[in-house]
Amino acid sequence: MTDAEELFATCPAPHHETDRVLLGHGSGGRLSAELIGEVLVPALGASGVDGPLEDAALLRVDGAELALSTDAYVVNPIFFPGGDIGSLAVHGTINDLAMRAAMPVALSLAYVVEEGFPLDDLRRVATSAGAAARTAGVPVVTGDTKVVGRGAADGIYVVSTGLGRCLPGPAPSAAAAVPGDVVLLSGPIGAHGVSILSAREGLAFETELRSDSRPLHGLVEAMIAAGGGEVHALRDPTRGGVASSLNEIAAASRVGVEIDETALPVPSAVRAACEMLGLDVTHVANEGCLVAFVAPAYAEAVLTAMRARPEGRGAVRVGAVTEAEPGRVWVRTSVGSRRVLDMLAGEQLPRIC
Amino acid sequence: MTDAEELFATCPAPHHETDRVLLGHGSGGRLSAELIGEVLVPALGASGVDGPLEDAALLRVDGAELALSTDAYVVNPIFFPGGDIGSLAVHGTINDLAMRAAMPVALSLAYVVEEGFPLDDLRRVATSAGAAARTAGVPVVTGDTKVVGRGAADGIYVVSTGLGRCLPGPAPSAAAAVPGDVVLLSGPIGAHGVSILSAREGLAFETELRSDSRPLHGLVEAMIAAGGGEVHALRDPTRGGVASSLNEIAAASRVGVEIDETALPVPSAVRAACEMLGLDVTHVANEGCLVAFVAPAYAEAVLTAMRARPEGRGAVRVGAVTEAEPGRVWVRTSVGSRRVLDMLAGEQLPRIC
Repeated sequence: MTDAEELFATCPAPHHETDRVLLGHGSGGRLSAELIGEVLVPALGASGVDGPLEDAALLRVDGAELALSTDAYVVNPIFFPGGDIGSLAVHGTINDLAMRAAMPVALSLAYVVEEGFPLDDLRRVATSAGAAARTAGVPVVTGDTKVVGRGAADGIYVVSTGLGRCLPGPAPSAAAAVPGDVVLLSGPIGAHGVSILSAREGLAFETELRSDSRPLHGLVEAMIAAGGGEVHALRDPTRGGVASSLNEIAAASRVGVEIDETALPVPSAVRAACEMLGLDVTHVANEGCLVAFVAPAYAEAVLTAMRARPEGRGAVRVGAVTEAEPGRVWVRTSVGSRRVLDMLAGEQLPRIC
Repeated sequence: MTDAEELFATCPAPHHETDRVLLGHGSGGRLSAELIGEVLVPALGASGVDGPLEDAALLRVDGAELALSTDAYVVNPIFFPGGDIGSLAVHGTINDLAMRAAMPVALSLAYVVEEGFPLDDLRRVATSAGAAARTAGVPVVTGDTKVVGRGAADGIYVVSTGLGRCLPGPAPSAAAAVPGDVVLLSGPIGAHGVSILSAREGLAFETELRSDSRPLHGLVEAMIAAGGGEVHALRDPTRGGVASSLNEIAAASRVGVEIDETALPVPSAVRAACEMLGLDVTHVANEGCLVAFVAPAYAEAVLTAMRARPEGRGAVRVGAVTEAEPGRVWVRTSVGSRRVLDMLAGEQLPRIC
């Protein structure tokens, strides 16, 4: 710390919250985008990310077309209906690779564990991660574990990194959507975020509500088999929800997006919970669905391929890409009006993944 | 938590410390090895690590020979003489790849940040990581940032993952040392651990003492050019120090190792600090040196190649591999006696990297 920072740190109020990291900086919404765009990427300088921010980076090494993706998991609670921090870390990274049409070939796992954390819980998390990886057919090849003192972490954090092999053909990109594209959604939304919230707060909206956490690489493989390079953009709407994913693609591709609110598949338990809690379901995190931007001539074939798989059984068309108002997402509501669908601005549910 | 665990968690004493994660489980020493061997690897089941634990995993993807390594960094303080948590994360992962003779081609960085952490410090860490990557010639291609509430982390933790391309020829392995091999050490030991400790405790042993944190892939490339497949094993003695690295190789290769204590290059400031603090310098962490096990006919050539590089200028022979007492490391002391050099058993310096 500099002297000025020392002084600042001991000064109770008023203080400039913009000088400090806020919970909203981890939301996956607008503050996250600002932190990444204005602090983290510029800090990397010429060695860093070039072009639009994607779920995974593409690399060519000795002729192999690869993808690399990393994600930190800080979900609270670590065990929740439908999963835990271990399986979530495996699924989340597999899905980030899949959004670039890369099939996972290897995973690494790093744990930061708080002193005093029950060994049984660590075993349970690690076993769940191993089982999720095995089910997805991906080996965990390496890892690391660090222990910090009591109070220096909240139980356990997990960082997973995935190496993927790209399917042949152009990789889908957040920057590749074009006017006319049909927007597809692979299934119901909102279950992950609402499950975490209900587990955290001890709320029981409906006993059967479970996180949708699951791997999506098989679904993507089927979609690419049906649509090839006509599958222009893919994104899994995790932190920040469907609204943030659509806005990211609209911004990176410089296109407008129009969504039909009535087409969004929202389970009744999720809808009830969102109404009770005052949440917009399009901002709620998901861990087992994706949005796809597909050329209109291939949309039906891709949709059929999606519905043939269990994780895409509920796939639907939800909208289309327009030329007007690039960077903006509009939603036609159930009462016929039209409103802007914005990114999540602050923090809706901290530590949702 | 199960009911029994809830009960246990609220029960003040006596309690079974073996049921909980201890600081020593993150030491890099024997408790770390037990945690990995008895909990984390078995939890992965058939999807997990096969064979001896290495610094990086080797993979073949579409004909490309690759290596993947991940490491979590929780060093305290985050800024210290000679580096910070950002540069350390970059160097550490590059070095883990290098220990398998893999040259780094891409890095990912994941940050877990505590709410309220100064944005300037985040910028400083990220800039330092970017500069370290640029200097090493490796792009940071992807990343992730999560924010947790005040008190749920201690400032910032960084997880780096590296993808490497293997140099041609057999990769060095902790399991590949054979009797007769010469043990080389690339330079002075102890500076990292003592620097962190002095920064943490506000001790000023000598103003010029700085962490040795630096990338070693160039050194390894020169060593492999000189010794090829006769460079049998490489390890960077980070957490747990030289003693733990030698023991790991002795155990994985089922060989004995004999070290000459007087040959170990220990800077006078490090020696003084260790004496004052009662530390065994062979247990103190390093971030910029390596031990190498090389066939005797190539030892001189490899040593010459090492000394031609700045990071290997102080390279020396420190011992040899024996057939007797596989798995054990002996040290001949300065007074002519012989003692077992054991792994670090508990935790010497928590959060040293």
